[in-house]
Amino acid sequence: MKERVTPRRLKGFQDYGPDVMAKRLAILAAARKVAHRANFVEIATPALEYAEVLLGVGGETDKQVFRFLDGGERDVAMRYDLTVPFARYTAENFGTLIFPFKRLQIGDVWRAEKPQKGRFREFMQCDLDIIGTNAVAADLEIVACFYDILSQIVPSSFTIACNDRQILSTLIKKIFELREQSEEEQALIILDKLGKQGANSVLSLLREQLKVDETKGQKLLALMSTSDEGTRETAIAPYFESPEEKAIWKRFQETLQILRELCTLDKGKIVFDLSIARGLAYYTGLVFETTVDGVEGFGSICGGGRYDNLAGRFTQQILPGIGASLGVDRLAALLMEKEGAKESWEGEVFIAVATEDALSYAFQIAAELRRKGFVVETTLKQQKLSQQFKFANRKAFPVVLTVGEEEKHSRTVSLRDMRAGEEQKGINLESLVPQLQTILKR
Amino acid sequence: MKERVTPRRLKGFQDYGPDVMAKRLAILAAARKVAHRANFVEIATPALEYAEVLLGVGGETDKQVFRFLDGGERDVAMRYDLTVPFARYTAENFGTLIFPFKRLQIGDVWRAEKPQKGRFREFMQCDLDIIGTNAVAADLEIVACFYDILSQIVPSSFTIACNDRQILSTLIKKIFELREQSEEEQALIILDKLGKQGANSVLSLLREQLKVDETKGQKLLALMSTSDEGTRETAIAPYFESPEEKAIWKRFQETLQILRELCTLDKGKIVFDLSIARGLAYYTGLVFETTVDGVEGFGSICGGGRYDNLAGRFTQQILPGIGASLGVDRLAALLMEKEGAKESWEGEVFIAVATEDALSYAFQIAAELRRKGFVVETTLKQQKLSQQFKFANRKAFPVVLTVGEEEKHSRTVSLRDMRAGEEQKGINLESLVPQLQTILKR
Repeated sequence: MKERVTPRRLKGFQDYGPDVMAKRLAILAAARKVAHRANFVEIATPALEYAEVLLGVGGETDKQVFRFLDGGERDVAMRYDLTVPFARYTAENFGTLIFPFKRLQIGDVWRAEKPQKGRFREFMQCDLDIIGTNAVAADLEIVACFYDILSQIVPSSFTIACNDRQILSTLIKKIFELREQSEEEQALIILDKLGKQGANSVLSLLREQLKVDETKGQKLLALMSTSDEGTRETAIAPYFESPEEKAIWKRFQETLQILRELCTLDKGKIVFDLSIARGLAYYTGLVFETTVDGVEGFGSICGGGRYDNLAGRFTQQILPGIGASLGVDRLAALLMEKEGAKESWEGEVFIAVATEDALSYAFQIAAELRRKGFVVETTLKQQKLSQQFKFANRKAFPVVLTVGEEEKHSRTVSLRDMRAGEEQKGINLESLVPQLQTILKR
Repeated sequence: MKERVTPRRLKGFQDYGPDVMAKRLAILAAARKVAHRANFVEIATPALEYAEVLLGVGGETDKQVFRFLDGGERDVAMRYDLTVPFARYTAENFGTLIFPFKRLQIGDVWRAEKPQKGRFREFMQCDLDIIGTNAVAADLEIVACFYDILSQIVPSSFTIACNDRQILSTLIKKIFELREQSEEEQALIILDKLGKQGANSVLSLLREQLKVDETKGQKLLALMSTSDEGTRETAIAPYFESPEEKAIWKRFQETLQILRELCTLDKGKIVFDLSIARGLAYYTGLVFETTVDGVEGFGSICGGGRYDNLAGRFTQQILPGIGASLGVDRLAALLMEKEGAKESWEGEVFIAVATEDALSYAFQIAAELRRKGFVVETTLKQQKLSQQFKFANRKAFPVVLTVGEEEKHSRTVSLRDMRAGEEQKGINLESLVPQLQTILKR
């Protein structure tokens, strides 16, 4: 035997045990149901791509990517989101897809970020995107679908905070008096740090990196932090002067208004939040993030936005899109915190085997009961009956059936109701199912 | 705009479009249902692990792994199966798990193999394992569960071919007269190539690498290729002489017999196949592979076996286990070949918007119908009604609803049955659902 290896995980990588996995599965089931009924189709793309496909989109992602040379000296990288691979997919399959194309994609993504509470190097995303249209309707569909998913999953109230990159860009350009588009993008990335690093840090970054003086910086930050929407809208509207600027403002106001008509459940509200910038550089229109009320520090559990030029990296076709991601693992962790494990994976019937020659008979009964929908476990150790009962008790099975030579020959079972402590012998298989239904209250 | 990037995938990596994805989802749903009813719990582990955790298990896997130094100079590797990470998981969580521990795990794995038909560098596995017992019952449970899954999925008949590593090892040792365990392992790896490379190649590898002369080689190959099970069993039995050897033979015969009692559907049969060796070095007992009858060249769609020492790499605890993998993607490809796309992802109701001010109303109706379970798409482009109908027709929606100013005010819709070509105006929302049910035959 070789030397022993310490069983340990990489920093920022998690195992998902049965309890949190049950949450994840419930989240994905809800998302798939909503997506399917809205006629999104599901696809999958590889974890590894050519580095050039994933990188150079801008923003901070290039620094955060797991990148290496494979055995064939290819420069490869692990995907850091599902959006860029999707843009590659649509460009590659342009000829056969019908646009607007609505897709669901669920998968792990990897970011070599500094791990911290709620931030991991591997996490699962669940994305809905609509590509091939820049209509307001697509923006509405994406936000409304996630609203629907979240309202089924999140146990308390939540807030979808919306903004528009073009609104923020216009304000940045006008207030900071920047000339270059690259400076605007840099300013956006700095502003995105507001929530995490605070106003002072953002102000000094603006000064150091873009020579934006404090007065200008504070002017924009003041707009961003105004809590009354009406006041802020009155303050912002005058910046939108030209017909193009007016159109940007009008579209966003319309979008917000219809979203509020559609998203009317008490538990979820739609707000305008000028401080939403989103770290990824590819957004060009509506952007949004979602926090659960009372645990905002937990971070966004669902966010995304419109990207009108992303597929342009791969094709000359014009493919504007909008999409968003559900942070499946963050949401699962939140549900664990709020609800606990809550009866996930409970076994119903344990089959104990009294004599070895009844093993095959035990499996036949198990198969029969499983076909009827019961969750059934047979004993998997050759041990004394008392030990088997001890095991069934430890795993909290409400019912234990025992089979031995006698039961095998008479085609019956002995049944013990573990909660009532009652035992019955000689139950034939016809009366077993109704009896189990009564005990298990199904 | 930066230079354009060619949208391409890495060799051996696939996209899964909507049609094949529908097959994958059906396979996973069947596997999850069977596993859940047999009281397996689902977990997930990271894609990346410390290289030392994954490597050195033996066999050919070390050469096939995607391995690199991460940003923190850690020697990391992408998992090549779900079994070794599971052994790490059980060792790491030894104190909190109840053994025997039954787990389901579904995830992608990566192997830097030469890509060829049916063999990719990224593929999805779906694994069931039972760890913490060496009882025959665990072997039966694993094979019987996969038999159940496969009989629900595979559209034609299939064969689960079983063997036992200890039987093969005993024969190798006795016929080849090898002394070292490492030589036995090497012989196993060579014999595993029989199906792919043929007898001559195997015979010369045995001669070159292990100095096994041709007569001995042919003696074993003859046993392996005997098609009549009775004849072969008579020829093999005499090699099992000592009490330990007799116990190996008896256990395997019992296992086969009970499996045949349990797996009685016409479409799936259990056979003894001495040529099943399995490429991975960690197997120590029962091994099996599954082929679909008539397309055996397609390769194994489900295989695994008993590994009694794997967790011993990580812990001094004794944790014998058995498990197997469903080759989800290979099976999905096979289903695509046999069945075609077969109405996956069909939309039911398309909502066309005649006037822009009816957009919000269209979304309200969509939400209502989706809640009732219909698959509904609203128009996502601002275009003429005739264009919207053309789009709905191209995507083969059986029903198109139209809403405009008039419908919005009267809270009605216009309905067009696309197959019958009939149109009806002024349908109120109460009568809409039953009418849709009639048209869609639900």
